[in-house]
Parts: sequence; C-alpha cells; structure tokens
Amino acid sequence: MPRTLVTELTDGQSLDQSFRLADKQIRVNRQGGKYLLLKLADRSGTIVAMMWNADDSDYEKIRRGGYVHCVGRTQVHQGALQVILTAIDDLAETEVDPSDFDQFDAGAADQALATLRDMIENLHNVYLRGLGKAFLSDESFISKLRLGTAAVSNHHAYPGGLLRHTVDLMEVCQFLGPRYPGVDTELLMFGAFLHDLGKIEEISASGELSYTDRGQLVGHIVIGVQMLGDAIAAFEEDADEDFPNDLRLQLEHLIVSHHGQLEFGSPRLPATLEAIALHHIDNLDAKITSFTSLIESDLTNNENWTNYHPSIGRKLWKKQ
Amino acid sequence: MPRTLVTELTDGQSLDQSFRLADKQIRVNRQGGKYLLLKLADRSGTIVAMMWNADDSDYEKIRRGGYVHCVGRTQVHQGALQVILTAIDDLAETEVDPSDFDQFDAGAADQALATLRDMIENLHNVYLRGLGKAFLSDESFISKLRLGTAAVSNHHAYPGGLLRHTVDLMEVCQFLGPRYPGVDTELLMFGAFLHDLGKIEEISASGELSYTDRGQLVGHIVIGVQMLGDAIAAFEEDADEDFPNDLRLQLEHLIVSHHGQLEFGSPRLPATLEAIALHHIDNLDAKITSFTSLIESDLTNNENWTNYHPSIGRKLWKKQ
Amino acid sequence: MPRTLVTELTDGQSLDQSFRLADKQIRVNRQGGKYLLLKLADRSGTIVAMMWNADDSDYEKIRRGGYVHCVGRTQVHQGALQVILTAIDDLAETEVDPSDFDQFDAGAADQALATLRDMIENLHNVYLRGLGKAFLSDESFISKLRLGTAAVSNHHAYPGGLLRHTVDLMEVCQFLGPRYPGVDTELLMFGAFLHDLGKIEEISASGELSYTDRGQLVGHIVIGVQMLGDAIAAFEEDADEDFPNDLRLQLEHLIVSHHGQLEFGSPRLPATLEAIALHHIDNLDAKITSFTSLIESDLTNNENWTNYHPSIGRKLWKKQ
Amino acid sequence: MPRTLVTELTDGQSLDQSFRLADKQIRVNRQGGKYLLLKLADRSGTIVAMMWNADDSDYEKIRRGGYVHCVGRTQVHQGALQVILTAIDDLAETEVDPSDFDQFDAGAADQALATLRDMIENLHNVYLRGLGKAFLSDESFISKLRLGTAAVSNHHAYPGGLLRHTVDLMEVCQFLGPRYPGVDTELLMFGAFLHDLGKIEEISASGELSYTDRGQLVGHIVIGVQMLGDAIAAFEEDADEDFPNDLRLQLEHLIVSHHGQLEFGSPRLPATLEAIALHHIDNLDAKITSFTSLIESDLTNNENWTNYHPSIGRKLWKKQ
Amino acid sequence: MPRTLVTELTDGQSLDQSFRLADKQIRVNRQGGKYLLLKLADRSGTIVAMMWNADDSDYEKIRRGGYVHCVGRTQVHQGALQVILTAIDDLAETEVDPSDFDQFDAGAADQALATLRDMIENLHNVYLRGLGKAFLSDESFISKLRLGTAAVSNHHAYPGGLLRHTVDLMEVCQFLGPRYPGVDTELLMFGAFLHDLGKIEEISASGELSYTDRGQLVGHIVIGVQMLGDAIAAFEEDADEDFPNDLRLQLEHLIVSHHGQLEFGSPRLPATLEAIALHHIDNLDAKITSFTSLIESDLTNNENWTNYHPSIGRKLWKKQ
Amino acid sequence: MPRTLVTELTDGQSLDQSFRLADKQIRVNRQGGKYLLLKLADRSGTIVAMMWNADDSDYEKIRRGGYVHCVGRTQVHQGALQVILTAIDDLAETEVDPSDFDQFDAGAADQALATLRDMIENLHNVYLRGLGKAFLSDESFISKLRLGTAAVSNHHAYPGGLLRHTVDLMEVCQFLGPRYPGVDTELLMFGAFLHDLGKIEEISASGELSYTDRGQLVGHIVIGVQMLGDAIAAFEEDADEDFPNDLRLQLEHLIVSHHGQLEFGSPRLPATLEAIALHHIDNLDAKITSFTSLIESDLTNNENWTNYHPSIGRKLWKKQ
Repeated sequence: MPRTLVTELTDGQSLDQSFRLADKQIRVNRQGGKYLLLKLADRSGTIVAMMWNADDSDYEKIRRGGYVHCVGRTQVHQGALQVILTAIDDLAETEVDPSDFDQFDAGAADQALATLRDMIENLHNVYLRGLGKAFLSDESFISKLRLGTAAVSNHHAYPGGLLRHTVDLMEVCQFLGPRYPGVDTELLMFGAFLHDLGKIEEISASGELSYTDRGQLVGHIVIGVQMLGDAIAAFEEDADEDFPNDLRLQLEHLIVSHHGQLEFGSPRLPATLEAIALHHIDNLDAKITSFTSLIESDLTNNENWTNYHPSIGRKLWKKQ
Repeated sequence: MPRTLVTELTDGQSLDQSFRLADKQIRVNRQGGKYLLLKLADRSGTIVAMMWNADDSDYEKIRRGGYVHCVGRTQVHQGALQVILTAIDDLAETEVDPSDFDQFDAGAADQALATLRDMIENLHNVYLRGLGKAFLSDESFISKLRLGTAAVSNHHAYPGGLLRHTVDLMEVCQFLGPRYPGVDTELLMFGAFLHDLGKIEEISASGELSYTDRGQLVGHIVIGVQMLGDAIAAFEEDADEDFPNDLRLQLEHLIVSHHGQLEFGSPRLPATLEAIALHHIDNLDAKITSFTSLIESDLTNNENWTNYHPSIGRKLWKKQ
Repeated sequence: MPRTLVTELTDGQSLDQSFRLADKQIRVNRQGGKYLLLKLADRSGTIVAMMWNADDSDYEKIRRGGYVHCVGRTQVHQGALQVILTAIDDLAETEVDPSDFDQFDAGAADQALATLRDMIENLHNVYLRGLGKAFLSDESFISKLRLGTAAVSNHHAYPGGLLRHTVDLMEVCQFLGPRYPGVDTELLMFGAFLHDLGKIEEISASGELSYTDRGQLVGHIVIGVQMLGDAIAAFEEDADEDFPNDLRLQLEHLIVSHHGQLEFGSPRLPATLEAIALHHIDNLDAKITSFTSLIESDLTNNENWTNYHPSIGRKLWKKQ
Repeated sequence: MPRTLVTELTDGQSLDQSFRLADKQIRVNRQGGKYLLLKLADRSGTIVAMMWNADDSDYEKIRRGGYVHCVGRTQVHQGALQVILTAIDDLAETEVDPSDFDQFDAGAADQALATLRDMIENLHNVYLRGLGKAFLSDESFISKLRLGTAAVSNHHAYPGGLLRHTVDLMEVCQFLGPRYPGVDTELLMFGAFLHDLGKIEEISASGELSYTDRGQLVGHIVIGVQMLGDAIAAFEEDADEDFPNDLRLQLEHLIVSHHGQLEFGSPRLPATLEAIALHHIDNLDAKITSFTSLIESDLTNNENWTNYHPSIGRKLWKKQ
Repeated sequence: MPRTLVTELTDGQSLDQSFRLADKQIRVNRQGGKYLLLKLADRSGTIVAMMWNADDSDYEKIRRGGYVHCVGRTQVHQGALQVILTAIDDLAETEVDPSDFDQFDAGAADQALATLRDMIENLHNVYLRGLGKAFLSDESFISKLRLGTAAVSNHHAYPGGLLRHTVDLMEVCQFLGPRYPGVDTELLMFGAFLHDLGKIEEISASGELSYTDRGQLVGHIVIGVQMLGDAIAAFEEDADEDFPNDLRLQLEHLIVSHHGQLEFGSPRLPATLEAIALHHIDNLDAKITSFTSLIESDLTNNENWTNYHPSIGRKLWKKQ
Repeated sequence: MPRTLVTELTDGQSLDQSFRLADKQIRVNRQGGKYLLLKLADRSGTIVAMMWNADDSDYEKIRRGGYVHCVGRTQVHQGALQVILTAIDDLAETEVDPSDFDQFDAGAADQALATLRDMIENLHNVYLRGLGKAFLSDESFISKLRLGTAAVSNHHAYPGGLLRHTVDLMEVCQFLGPRYPGVDTELLMFGAFLHDLGKIEEISASGELSYTDRGQLVGHIVIGVQMLGDAIAAFEEDADEDFPNDLRLQLEHLIVSHHGQLEFGSPRLPATLEAIALHHIDNLDAKITSFTSLIESDLTNNENWTNYHPSIGRKLWKKQ
C-alpha cells in the first residue's frame, strides 16, 4: 500500500503507514491517564498526532528524529487535521523509502543552480561577473544555498525554496529590465541574486525550520550586506583590483532597501530605479506564491472561499 | 533655428521661438505696473512666463489656446524654471510646425492599438474574446482610448499614456501568467485591459489634463465597472447568449480591487490570484515609470541626487 | 411550560423545550466515544449544544433545518453559553409554534415599508420621487428589501434589519437636513434610502446570514451603484425622459462615499454636504445600535462592565 | 455708498469705505522703499492690505484697534484676496456704524441663552436641573459663555459660536435620544451642555481669537472637568446635599471622552451609550458646519470645485 | 518542608503545601462528572488549579479568600502552568505564615516613603516644598500611596509598585536634570512625584488588582489633576497665600502630557522641557522594568528566546 | 566693535562686521536689475543676505569660502531673519579672528575624548576593553570622530556633536545601568559608544553638513555594523584570539535596533534589556537636546510660545 503524503490526508481517513517522528511528548490528561503527543512528518509536511491510553514504554520505544509505523485515523479538531493513533512502532531507517521523507528536491536544486551559473557567466559587466564567480566558487556557500529556505512559514518555506525564489526573480528581472530604458538589467539581476542571501544564516534549514540567534538579533538584510562584503574582499584578493565603490554602494543599497518600506524592515527606502524595481518584483513573486499556497492548503471543502487569514486580512476565492 | 522643447530648457537660456499659449492673465504688481502672467506649452510640457511692463494691448493681441512667438530668457525662481519675456507676438497656426505642439504620438497609439487588437483576438476563451471585441468595435470608445491619459500628473500623464500603460501591463501579464500554475493568464490579461478604462471618463484629456465631475464624484474604479456592464450588455445582445456570471464577477473584482488596499481606493481587497497579480504588476509599472520621470525631470545639476519629493518621502539617486 | 428564548438562557438552567436544528455533526472524542455537536436556534438567536455518548441512530433521527425537542442543561464554557443534552427527539413542524422560530417581524417590516413609501411619495423633487417609485414598484426588489439584513453580525444583523436601519436614517435626515441651510434635505433622505441597498445582494439573509460570492468579490457599495443604474434605466424608460446627469452623479457619490474614509471601503471621500452628513448620520445610528447590542447581550453578571471587545478596543459600562 | 463686507469682496473690486484696523506694521521693501502692511477687519472677517510708498507719518496717523477709511483695490495674490491701498485715513468711532464691526450677534446670543435656560429648567432629573442652575446663576460664567467661541479657526470660530454649537447639539440630542431606548436623553443633553465649556478658558475671544496659556498647557477637556467640579461644589453647598457620585462620573466621562478617540485628544474612549452618542452628534455638527464654511468662503469662480484643503484631504463640490 | 512560591513552581512538580484560595468554582465536565476550578495564590502570584472527580462537599468545605492545604502536581497546559489536585483542605489563618501571603513589602515601602519625604523636604522652591508637604501630611493619602500599584498587569503591578516607580523616577530626575541646562530639576522631580498619583484611585489594590469605575470612566491622568487641585487648595488654606498660577499650569501640564502622545492617552503633547523629559524618563523605567519581568517570568526552558509577546510584537533574548 | 554672532542677531539691527562667505549667487530680479544672494556664516550659524543693485564686479571680488566685511541691516522676512547689505568687501584670512569662525570647540572635544578613553580603559570585560582600544588606537578613526556631527540639522548638528552625544549617553548608561539588576552596564555603555559611529561616514562634516552618497544609500546603522566588523577583525588580529560570537551578535544588535522601531529605520526591534535601554536613553537625550535648541533659537519676541514646528507637531512653551 503506497503512503499518503501528509498534505494529501483528508478528514476521517484510516492510516497504516510510516512517518518521520519530528517530536514526541508524554502528557497526563485531566483524568490522570497518560497519552502521547507527537509530530509526524514526511517530505510534504507535518501533522499532529495523539495516542490515548499510552504508557511510558510506548514513549520509550520510539525515537525523536527516527521513523515510526502508525495505525490510526485522521480527524478535524478545531479546524486543523490531526491523527488519533491506535498503534505505533519504531522503524529502522532501512525500512523506509528515503524519498518519502526528503523534502529537498535535489534535481530541481541542481537545475536551478545551473541556471544561476549560466546567468552569472553571461553577465557583460566584468565586476558583477567576477563578484558572482566569487560567490559561486565558494563550496560552503553553494551547499548552504542549495538547501536554504526563503522563510520559516509563508512562501517558499522549504529547503531549496530560497534558490527557487532567487532564480525566479532573476529570470523576471531579465525579462522586465529591458522594458524600462533607465534600468540597468544586469545590476537588477545581480540585486535579485543578492537580496535574500542573508537568509542562509538567518534561518536554520536543517530539521524544523527556525530562526537562528544571529537571524533574530541581526536579520537577513544586515547579514546579506556582511556576506557581500566578504565576497567583495574575496574578489579583490583574487582579481588584485579594487571593486568599484559606486557599484558596491548600489549593491548594498539593493539589499538594504529591498523590503521597500521602513516598517517592513528596510533601513533605507529604495532610491535607485533598480532598487524600486527589485522591491516590486520580489513582492509580486512572494505574494502570488503565498496566496497560491494558502488556496492549495485550504481544507474547507464545500465552500468557494478559504478560511479567513488574519495575516492578509481576508478570505481567498477558490475557483473550481 | 530649431525650437528647444520645454523639457529641455535650462537655466539662463536665451529664447526666440514659438509656443502654444496655454493661459494668459494680466496682473498689477506692487508698484502699480502691469505684467503678463502666461503659460507657454509645447508637446513636451508647460512653463510659466512673465512679461514685465506690459500693457493691455500686449494682453489683447495674443489668444489663449493660440500660438505665440516669444523672445526672452529662462531663470530658476524658487526651484522652478520660468521665462522672463521681453517680447511676445501672436502667430497663425500656419506659422508653426504642428508636430512641435501635438503631445499625442499618433503612430505610437496606432501601434499600441494594433498590439491590443492582436492580443484580444488571440484569446482562446470565447467569452473574453467576444467581450474584448464588444469594446474594440465601439468607435467612440476606441477614439477616447487612443487619447486617454493614465493620470493628471505622475506616471503616463499624457494623451496616449493610458493605452501605453494598458498594453504594457498586458504584455507583462502574458509573460508572467504562465510562470504561476494557478493563474489564468487570459483572465489576468483581460483584467489588465480593463483595470484603468474608467480613466477615459475620469480625466479630461483635451487641453489641460483635469478631473471631470464624474471622475471626482464617482472615480475610475466604479466608472470602469459601469463600462464593463455596458460592454457585457452589448456582448449579450450581439451574441444572444448570457455572459457567464462567475466570469463577470471575477472581471468586476479585478477592476474593483486593483489598487490593492482599501486606503488606496479599492473598495475590496484582491481575493483571487489574478487580482493579487494584477495589482502588483500595475504597481510595478507605475512605480518604475514614475521614478524614471522624477529622475529625468530633475533640474539640480551638480548633485548625484534629485530634490526631495514629499509624495515619495525621499530623494532619488541619479547615476551618471 | 413556555419556551425560554435562546437569548434569555442563563448559566446552569434546565431545559425541556423545542428548538430549530440549525446544524448537526457527529464527532469522535479523544477516548473514541461519539458525541453530537449541534446548533440550536429560535428567532432570538443560536446556541451550541453537545450530547455525549450519542450513537449513529441519534444522529440519523434528527433533521438539519427541522425541529427538535431537547432535554438538558446550560453551562458556560470558555466564556460562552452552551447546552449539554441528555435527550433529543425529532419534532414535526406542526408540533411547534412557528412564531417562536421566525426571526423576521413581518408587522414591523410592513410598517417600515409604509413609512418608506410615504416619505418617497411626499418628495417634491420629481426626479427623486419618480426614481423612488421605480424602486418601490419592483416587486422582486421589495420582497428582498423586506427580508434584508444590514450585516452578518454587529448592528441590525437580522432579516428586516436593513429596512429598519434605512427608514431610521431617512427620518433622522428629515429632521436634521433643515437645520443646515446648505443641505438639500430630499437629496440627503434619498441618499439614506440608497446607501445600503447593495446589501440585499451582498448578504444572503435566508438561513444563516452569510456573504454571497458577489458580495465578497464586488461589495455592497459597487452593487448599490449597479442597482441605482438599473432603477434609473427603468425610470427613463417609464418616463421617456432622461434622468438629470448631475443628480445621478450626486446619488452615485452618496453611495460611493458613505463609509466616509478610504480605509473603510469608500473609494471616494465625501465631497458634498449631503455626503458628509449621510456618512455621519449612518455612523451615529450604527454605533449606538451596535453598542446597545453589546451591552444587552453581555453575560457577565456581577460587574458594572461588559467583557472587553477587541473590535471596539474597550469594555462598556452597564448602568443599572 | 453702503459698505461691502470683507467676506463679500471679490477680485479686482474698487474700495472706498471704512474698516477696523486690526493690525499695522511698517516695512522696508527690497528697493529700500517703505510700505504699510495692515489687517483690515469688519464683523464678517479680516483681510490683508498693503500701501506702497508709505512714510512714517502714514503709519503714525492710524491707530491699531481704531477705525480707518480706505481707498484702494482688491487683487488675488497667491490664491488669497488682498487690498492695495492708495489712501488711508483715521476715523473717529462716531464716524462708523458699530453694527458693521461687531462680529458678535447679541440678539442671537440672547435667544440661544433663553433656549438653554428653558431646556435646563425643563429637566426632570433634579440633580441635573440643580447643577444646570448652578452654572446658569453664575454671572461671570454666563457673560463668558455668551461671548465664547468654539474654535480659533474652522467651525463656529466667532464670539457666540460656542453657545450656538452648544444649544444646537442639545436640540439634536433632545430629538435623537428618545429614538434609542437605552439612551438617557437628559444625561445626553447635559453632556452636550458641558462638553465644550472648557473652551471659555481655552480660547481668548477678545480681540483676535487665540489660545490662552492654560488652554495650550492643559486643554479644554481637562479645564471642563475642573469647571464641572466647581459647579458641583456650588450645587452641594447650595443644596446642602451630595451630588450622586455615579452621576458625577458619567458627566466627567462625557466631557473626557467626547473627542471619541485617543488620537483626537480624549484621554478615555466613550464607554457609555450617551458618550458614544454625544461624540457622534458633536462630530456631525462640526463636520457639516465646517464643510459649509469651506464651500461658502471659496473664491475659485469658474469651477464646480473648491480649492484642495489639506486639512480634510480633498476638494469639495460646489453645486449651483 | 518550606513552601515553594507560585512563581517558582516548575512543570511536573509535586505539591503538598498551603495557598490562599483566591477563587473557587464547581463545574460539570463533558461526561457529567463534577470538578473544582480554583485560583491558588501566595504573595508571589496566582495559579489555576483543578481537582477532578470532586463533589459538592469538597466545594463547600473551602472558603473563597481563606487558606487551603493542597496535594497535587503541576503541569503545563497550553503553555501555562496549572495544578492538578488530588486533595484539598481548609486551613485556619493561624495555621499559615502570614508573610507567605502578603504581597506587600512593608519595609521597602517605608524606606521608599522616607526617601520621598527627604526629597520633598530638600526642595528649595518654597511652593513645591509646601505643596509636597500638603500631600505628605494627608494620612489617608499616605496610606493609599503606600499600598498603591502602578498597573493591573505589566510593570510594577503589585501593592507598593506605585511608590517604588515614583521614587525611582524622582531619583533619575535628580541625576539627569542638572545635565540639561534648560531643565528645572525641582520642577521635573515634582512632576515625577505627581505623574501617576491618580492611579491610587484608578486601580483598586485590595484583593485582586482591578480598575475602579472612576478609573475606567475618567482615568488616572484627569484624576491626578483633580488630586493636585485638592492639594493646592489645602496648601493655600494652610499658607494663606495663593499658589502661583504659572507653576500650577506647569504641574498640571506635567501630569496631563506625561504619556507623551495623544494616542497613548495624553490629551496634550509635552510642551515644556520638563514635560518632554518626564515622559521619556517614565517610558525608560517602564520599558526596562516590563521587559525584565517578561524575561524573568518566561517558562520556555531550552531556548534562548522567550515566547512571542503580541503586546510588544517580539520575542526577547534570554542570555545565560 | 565686537562681532555679533549670527545666532544673536535680532530684527532691525545695523551690521558692520566680518563673516565667512558660505555661498554667493548673482540673480536678476523681476525688473531686470541684478542682486547678490549670499550665505553669511560664523561659528554660531548661517544667515541669508541680499545686496540689491549689485553688479558683476561686486560678485567677482568676493570668494566663496573666504571672508567678507559687510555693512547692512537685518530684517525679518516671512518669519526668518535675513540681512540687506549696502556694502560688501573681501577680507584676507589674516584680517579675521579665526575663533569667530571655527564652529568646532577643540577643547571640549579633547576633554570628551579623554573621558571616553577613561571609560573604555576602565571596562572590566576584557573583550569590550580590547575592542574599544582597537577603535581608539585607529588615528584616522579618532580624527573623524573628533569632528563628527550627530545630525545635519536638529540635535547635536555641529562638528563635535557626535562625540558629545556619545559620551553623554555613556555617562547616563553608567548611572542607570546598575539601577536595573538584569542590565549588563558595560555592554550597555559599549552599545552607547557604538550606536551612532556610522554617522562619521554618513554625514560629511567638512563645510556645510550634508549626507554622503554612502550615507543615503546604506545609512549609518549598516555602516556602523561594517565599522564594528572591521574593528573586531583588528582586535582578533592583534589579540590572536577570536572575539566571542555571542558578544558580537549582541553588539551588532545594539547598533541595529537602537532606533527602537522599524518605521524609524531599525531593521530589528530591541530584543535585549541593553538594547531597549539604549534606545530609550538615546531618545531621551536627543529629544531634550532638540527641544532645548528649538526654544533657544526661537525668534518670536513677545510670546510665551515658540512658532509651530511641524516636525514635532506643536509649539513649545518658553518660560521666563
């Protein structure tokens, strides 16, 4: 029997399959009985599960971060899907198909990386091309970039999401730039490449997505400027030539202003054509991607509308 | 001697050429002397002019809306360029080159209209294609659309600007739509076609650009919905078939929500993927176009920065 | 034993009476037992009820939308009143008193309609009077208006509430208009008549109050303008005379601007004396009515103050 | 030749009549010549005037606060009407008609006072009636109330304006109160009486309207509470009976919350039905009165629209 | 066995000790069983407790406001610590150590009072010193001030907290005042003394902290001005001399403006150097104290960060 | 005759003294006459001057940036003081007293630097002390810090102002830190040292104060983080030891969050006790200093109130 992905589970469905055990806790209910409170995961997502009338041995025999075989049934509780288990057992890593649990799509990442390398190598501006190579020749950077996520929740919130978002923006910049005479398309594309790189250090993409201390204390915008500074130093050492100061300031400005407004965390407002363009292209991609995911993940069945989402202050229309 | 366009005038420049007389007034200065206060125009823009020590015959001999020959010199007064005239004379229409004064670029408009017709005729959705033809077969609509402006000031504020902005958006939609699986590209393109049509009735594009009473009392968003209603009625009569209600609601929603937020005058927030996409594509084009025009029209010479613009809360960087 | 209305139920009260079954669901609790989750209604309101240890036959024997006889007891759970049932049975429509369940007060509606007809017929402005008659002679419109609600929750949220709110506003306009010399009282009264008519199509008042697709995608303000357009067309056809354009624009403006500010969903700000007056009179009636209902429906017994209401950012004082 | 009132002056009008000299200054222009900069007033308003080529004797012969005879001509300068004088002379008080210069309409004030006394004396609530009499029997209070203004600019900004606004509100409260069952009409009316009394001490209504130090440091809301405290003390001494504490708190609350929102200077939000009603009735009267005055004082001749007013963020429509 | 303070309880801890019974309720659970819902308190704080399978005699034998002996175990439920009891018994007042339950630290209060008296007596300004003595010689005022709280929750929310906050501010003012030449240090210190005195009447500090009717209807800012008025009257009677009016206005202004902005409840903006200083010094003390308490009371164990606090829109970093 | 400082000039004052010529322009007036438009400066400030009826030789004989001797008279024009010149002559540098023109107070700067060195050297935390020395041993940094300004206008807007503001904050931190148990006083003091250092590169303090390109494109907050990174690199190279990562993050956070809110340009909100304290201490010093300077520079003579300042939304009270 093939597994059903977490995101494809529906209300009232019987389950008899494997999961990754993202978290386990043992709790005492109001009548004094013990139960397990678990988080079950696969590559598509995470779901909460409970097993009533459990005892300490049930808790001990399963490993946080390991794999489990579960028997039970889904139900909707307060608007969210959860699983009520009747049995759970530990599984060895050899007993599962790793592709069921690896959220990261290596093929897609490699393809995106190839596209990225291609765009960087085809830049005519020698400083941008050289600086791009300084980034791309850094193995440690590349391996983090491949796995990076663009967010903890909301849009592109999965390993590989950052790369996908970055390359998408660069392609849109490549199309839109030449439509506006005053815009330097290569500078705009390079801004798209740089704009969210700080997220590599802001969000820990191994295990559960979460913000790092550095991410919370400093934020990806300032981290991105720091990473740019390191790459420019590497370029200058390698090229034995100063990187042009005006170009550096424009690149820093593209990172620093890409949220578009102070209240969204940009310490400076976009003040160049490329900066205003980058902000709006980023916003466009983020908003469409995020609305798509809200519509796709909506569970309300017999309605034309999703639930109300406070973060966007509205319901969305689901057309057939 | 060829004319210098209004937008190409600089400080301290001698003038000896023709203008359109957009406005004329006679005033008394603090010492009791009379002077002329004029607005001189050509296809590129408008400039204020004064002639000191004028008398009533100077005022009488020139016609508001007619052409004049001017001798004088430019100067910057309180940050704006103006002209101090030493002589002014009436010119017959036959004495000027009409192409100097016609702000409207008929060739560009015809090309844009052809592109628009092409995009409409290539739609696969029969209702959208039929509805598009209902608009395009309305001679009166087409002649207004050709001359329409997208704004009184700011971006695309010239006869033909509305059509330019509309076709630009439709082309961007054609490129971006297919990148997002959930988006109906034809619906999005049609939304781009419709979104600002109400401006035809909101802004009077003959003579000085100005808002109509209907424009100020009702606004282009509601007018656009009214125009859509008329076109649907025309389609239904012609096709002898009802226009699908769901499709109508989605088109109305695209118009109604395209400003993106209530405080920008949209009575509803974007609630479909196409609506959120249209808003951001519109915003992107408007912002880049408007920033470009602020940079191009900036007069400060020896600075890397434009003046401070309160409407956007910043100065813009002018790169060489 | 007479029924106790839903809104008059208090904590810890025994129940043995009829309800309308607004909704029924069967659920499984954490220990695997089944229970019924129900919504019980009468003309005064709706209350949630649970019956523990139920089985499928309990669920099958009662009809959603039908009537039931309930035995049980009320309790406060997380600040809201609910009912715990010990027995439930189906009731035939003949076994209940319909007046207990009909939220709509037909007598009050007819009286309000009569007042409305009276005010319309006494208008001196022939165009407004004629347009009013075009509305009032439309049977389908009248039957929807009689049952319409002014909101899904908050003020006047019941069938007939729209008519009540409309006629109330018109009477206040009739009193206040003449106190302000510049105000056209008849125009103001007609604006009050029109301002919320779009809610007839925005909110479905049959069964549970809920927004229609049209309501959510287009909104009552734009719908109201569309309804006005249809009525003007009817007037013109009937009178064989054009409706004055300036008057039409003013009426459209009254609808379009009556929320008073862009961020409250008005695409235009009030720009005529009648528009600013209508907005404030509407606001006054809505606020007093809504505060009254918050005070009346408050359950906290031994306090001078209601609960904190986030929507208005405060508690209200309940005087004895 | 009868005088033309200041507010009825139009552009390009010859003048040969009396004014009150509200202010006089002598200035040196850029060419070293001296000129007079004056403020001319009558009961309807104030206008700026200049007399070029003046000398010290011109300046000396006229008295600030006295009367002058002026010959000259009006003109619009930067959107505002001003007068260019060719002659000016001192006038004795006996040479003018005082009714031309007295902005205060004593008859209207007496009539409003009579209405006020009548409403207070007809209150059924003995405490409110008694407290009202404590105010009305204070000669010093009455003489200030008669002359008080409701604002320095904007609505009701003239001696007598406060009384007019107060009595108007009380009458509206008398009509609206009984329409809302939960509202205590007499309490609401008394709140209307009290709400702006602090303005008597906040604004100096003698000569040019201006804020007092106390007005700017403490504000009319807190001053109003202080005045209420004094009147209650007077009542208690007179009646030899305590004023009920709950009633006192409600009256204080009506004053304190009548601006409706913290950001408009109310330290508490309206939390009683009377308080929310009073705020909206006050707002309604203030807004209609202020918009009326903006329309009436607009100078733009050949337009359907007033100038843009930044304080309300819009132009207003002037219908014929 | 020594008691563990409420604030020192941790998850999964066994309990066998005394508490004050702040509240008791008997409830019926979903299976029809009864349980007790209690609030247990000591001087450090309050915690919710439940005893399952209780009966009416359990409920009857314990007294609200009395003392109880409890046996049970703590657990975290939905992020908050609670206690599940297995036994509860009534305790006589003689069986507990009162110092465990008295939240008020009398020694600290007396010390703070002494500091306050000292600072007042050392003022050189005779009016401020005299006015301060008028306050300090009022026994009833002093006994309320000793016990007053600065807030219902958030910073300094305990009996004695108001005095602590007041004296702290005065000391900071004493240090900072002389650093700024234009600042009148004694006036600033006296403003710090006055600024929150109205909280004595705004918040009831006996039993559970809660707002009084007067507090909610009028607010501590206006109450503070009233208290100042009474003290000035006392001073004038005692000294047989008028208190200087300018000084009175400045003191009133310090109270009235100390929240710094209208939207934070100050009806006037700070307009003197002392007022702007007082606002910022108050804000500084309140913010540091409140952030400290959020960090100290955080329960999340194995994290560097507290929970997200919506009131401040962030998590806080907990360093080791 | 001793010079009168620019800031001590009053209306109607005769002048016969030296100035630095900050700027010179020659203009043509409306009657065709030429005049000089000048900026005259000394150490206290700058004032605009005009000389009517000038010719090209007047313009040529004086040097921008040089010194001039002026004869003329002050006058108030549109609320600002200006000078009307009757004569102007070039002065050699040897003819003026340099101390009249040097805005920078070298003695005060040296004293502040000594205080700063002292505080750094007395830090107990070896990393902070070492890092501080890395800054202080950088000659180029010190010479810029000595002359740096904290703003282009508003508070501390003069060469040396940055150092003054920095040392002031550190002293306040030294006093306040120990009052709050959770606060690390040395970390707080070091944050005060760092917080505005980026202004050294943001604002060009030579000649007229103005923002650099780097300042406008990147901003002092991000520049400050870059400077900290360089100093840490210098420390690590010198000490041959890694700077602790947690400490680095906290220092970066102090810089990044010190504006306190996103909308004031901080990309992160203060999340440590030291960060929230630093923000409020900075704000306190900036606000008192800026209000003091608004009061001191106010020209309105016979009023208790300054002009209205839109930037702070109020007038300020000037006490005698």
